[in-house]
Amino acid sequence: MNREHAFQPGRAAAHVNRERLQERIDTLARIGATARGGVNRQALTREDALAQAEMTRWGAALGLRAMRDPAGNFFLRLPGSVPTAAPVVSGSHLDSQPTGGRYDGVYGVVAAFEAVQAMLEAGVAPERPIEIVAWMNEEGSRFAPGMMGSAAFAGARGLDVILDAADAEGVRVDEALRQVDALLSGWQDEGLPSIEARPLGGAVHAYVETHIEQGPVLEQRGVPVGVVTGIQGKHTWRVEVHGEAAHAGTAARAGRKDALLAALDMVAALRGAFHDTEDAVRFTVGRFEVVPNAPSVVPERVVFSIDLRHPDTATLRALAARVALLCEANRGPCEVAVHHLSAADSLVFPAAMQARVREAAHAIGVPTLDLPSAAGHDARYLHDVAPTAMIFVPCHLGITHNEAEYASPDDMYQGARVLAEVLLALAGEGARA
Amino acid sequence: MNREHAFQPGRAAAHVNRERLQERIDTLARIGATARGGVNRQALTREDALAQAEMTRWGAALGLRAMRDPAGNFFLRLPGSVPTAAPVVSGSHLDSQPTGGRYDGVYGVVAAFEAVQAMLEAGVAPERPIEIVAWMNEEGSRFAPGMMGSAAFAGARGLDVILDAADAEGVRVDEALRQVDALLSGWQDEGLPSIEARPLGGAVHAYVETHIEQGPVLEQRGVPVGVVTGIQGKHTWRVEVHGEAAHAGTAARAGRKDALLAALDMVAALRGAFHDTEDAVRFTVGRFEVVPNAPSVVPERVVFSIDLRHPDTATLRALAARVALLCEANRGPCEVAVHHLSAADSLVFPAAMQARVREAAHAIGVPTLDLPSAAGHDARYLHDVAPTAMIFVPCHLGITHNEAEYASPDDMYQGARVLAEVLLALAGEGARA
Repeated sequence: MNREHAFQPGRAAAHVNRERLQERIDTLARIGATARGGVNRQALTREDALAQAEMTRWGAALGLRAMRDPAGNFFLRLPGSVPTAAPVVSGSHLDSQPTGGRYDGVYGVVAAFEAVQAMLEAGVAPERPIEIVAWMNEEGSRFAPGMMGSAAFAGARGLDVILDAADAEGVRVDEALRQVDALLSGWQDEGLPSIEARPLGGAVHAYVETHIEQGPVLEQRGVPVGVVTGIQGKHTWRVEVHGEAAHAGTAARAGRKDALLAALDMVAALRGAFHDTEDAVRFTVGRFEVVPNAPSVVPERVVFSIDLRHPDTATLRALAARVALLCEANRGPCEVAVHHLSAADSLVFPAAMQARVREAAHAIGVPTLDLPSAAGHDARYLHDVAPTAMIFVPCHLGITHNEAEYASPDDMYQGARVLAEVLLALAGEGARA
Repeated sequence: MNREHAFQPGRAAAHVNRERLQERIDTLARIGATARGGVNRQALTREDALAQAEMTRWGAALGLRAMRDPAGNFFLRLPGSVPTAAPVVSGSHLDSQPTGGRYDGVYGVVAAFEAVQAMLEAGVAPERPIEIVAWMNEEGSRFAPGMMGSAAFAGARGLDVILDAADAEGVRVDEALRQVDALLSGWQDEGLPSIEARPLGGAVHAYVETHIEQGPVLEQRGVPVGVVTGIQGKHTWRVEVHGEAAHAGTAARAGRKDALLAALDMVAALRGAFHDTEDAVRFTVGRFEVVPNAPSVVPERVVFSIDLRHPDTATLRALAARVALLCEANRGPCEVAVHHLSAADSLVFPAAMQARVREAAHAIGVPTLDLPSAAGHDARYLHDVAPTAMIFVPCHLGITHNEAEYASPDDMYQGARVLAEVLLALAGEGARA
């Protein structure tokens, strides 16, 4: 087979199968399904392992090798005709929020799988290996912060730091990883195709991530595919407020050190300071834990999260600089410790990578719209180590991180078609150079 | 033995043993001991059952019959010389807050036990039966509201209503009771003395509850025993705020229905409305639960508790009437449901019962101080069905519902001495009438 043949526009896209793609989305949605039609498949849970096992079986049927690295990232590898060349990598994540939807993350992994299967069915053998990836803990709901696996892969965070992070029950990532290892090993003893260990990191020729938009723009404009121009910056904090437990009936207000009221004052101050008339700041306190959390005890301790984003890096940095000061100024009689967990600037994907997506789409007749990503993605970290692009498909009403999340089979199909073309083109370039 | 003999002042008090009392406090403190020197022995847990088992063994050694009623209240009964007479009942509770102290509740149960043992050692046989009681779920931390067992005993709340209350994990009281039953049955198979089932309620000649003050007054005044004049009124609520889950990075502020921010607005409004210059209002939000409680998800739901108290019933009622209105007025784009869980007026114990405690103390040379109780107690419900008194002992710095809670062996000893005299006098009156 010659390269010209492989590059014939639409050759891979023609074999992308809408029903098969939807069926795989539905299959994964059953793993951790919630009563209200969503998914609870948090990182490094049994459900997360079950999803990887399912993909291992799919991969084996196509001859793809399943692999896991020490950060818990999961790969399915298609060997290229030049097997030593740096791979083209594509995927997203299989973990979800506790009350998450069926598409966030999963779509990007399933679309990459569909793209590879389409290439195989088209009889086009890419020169570079192609790796389908599911990054560990993108969501950051069980273990904070998120995008752990991709950050470790790209060297942005040390593996030891990540392995030491603990969930709300005190279970550390390294323990949870061992639990997943044990589950997968047990299932391999029962017939699951083998999953190889591989080292962390390695050269990547290019990375492409497909994802639902998680905003309303594509749907409103009626465009099936978004060319993502970049990712909005995001800072996160964990704030710990220490007061003093006391009896709700006997302790006078003047003598109380009520951690909940102090935390409330902090959140109110932050909310006021970050209120912008253009509504571009994204300020969220999503997690808020009270100790001892008993109705007749004055709260002794509160731990809350702050998620702050803004598309402009300079503005975001200026807002972020005020967080600790505002918490400190509103602590009242309590003590406060403000931990700045992550600080990511806004980024812009390479114009050449954006152009590849745009051109591949247009070559097969799919309209596109350029737009930034307001949400963070694993592509943020891959951008640091490889030319990276993202492809968006519409997300109904922009509802996401919610069990009602929805993306249409048609839109997901168009996104996977574009991805197949982009991956095939990337896998054919410079492998023999 | 004649009644005059039994009534000789100080006869029972002389046998109250300070070291033994302290040792029993220490023994029970080891059941559910926390790392910081406190106790976590919430209602109807394994620890709660272990404490009852321990008391069953103590009782058997003195010939006291252990009994449990359908509400999970635990009794040790000393038969009187007139065994059909209505019993004198004394005790408190063995359950604790999640980060509770070693004395709250436990002291009242252990003091009653010590008083009975002192009577037996003194060779005085009371005419009326005496029952030592540990009421089920006084604290209300695992199952709300508190004082469940005494409320059911007194008929203030229906047994069916109480059995249906659920903890944060969805476990209902009736299930938890069956778990405790199963534990105790299992231990009886292994040699624990038997525990009889008894019906709920029944006639009570008088009820006396001994307790740490949970405030600083007795310590500040240097008085070992408080004669409790009454109990401050208390209202409680559960407030459920319903918003909409959304992505922290993509959802614009204007379109959010953030349940946490709405809840914080409600708490801020209540706090402002209940701020009194004399610092007599007790307003506490002790429990605050966020769903899904994930850092990058706009909170979909918040459930929080309100505990409101004031010594003046009319003032308390006026404040209570504003709670639902203030929550409703501050719900923003969210929905709110305000459940008024309990509404107890302030009460005054019978002057004759107060006088009995005062006179018994003075007869054995123990100084007393009259003072109201700012905290609620099971005595609140017993007051509805029997002449009731309460005896307080000092609580160091007024610190309670806190692992640092402390009461001195001397003060606890003096309280138990007074209790022994009061119980003996009550048990000798009118039994043959």
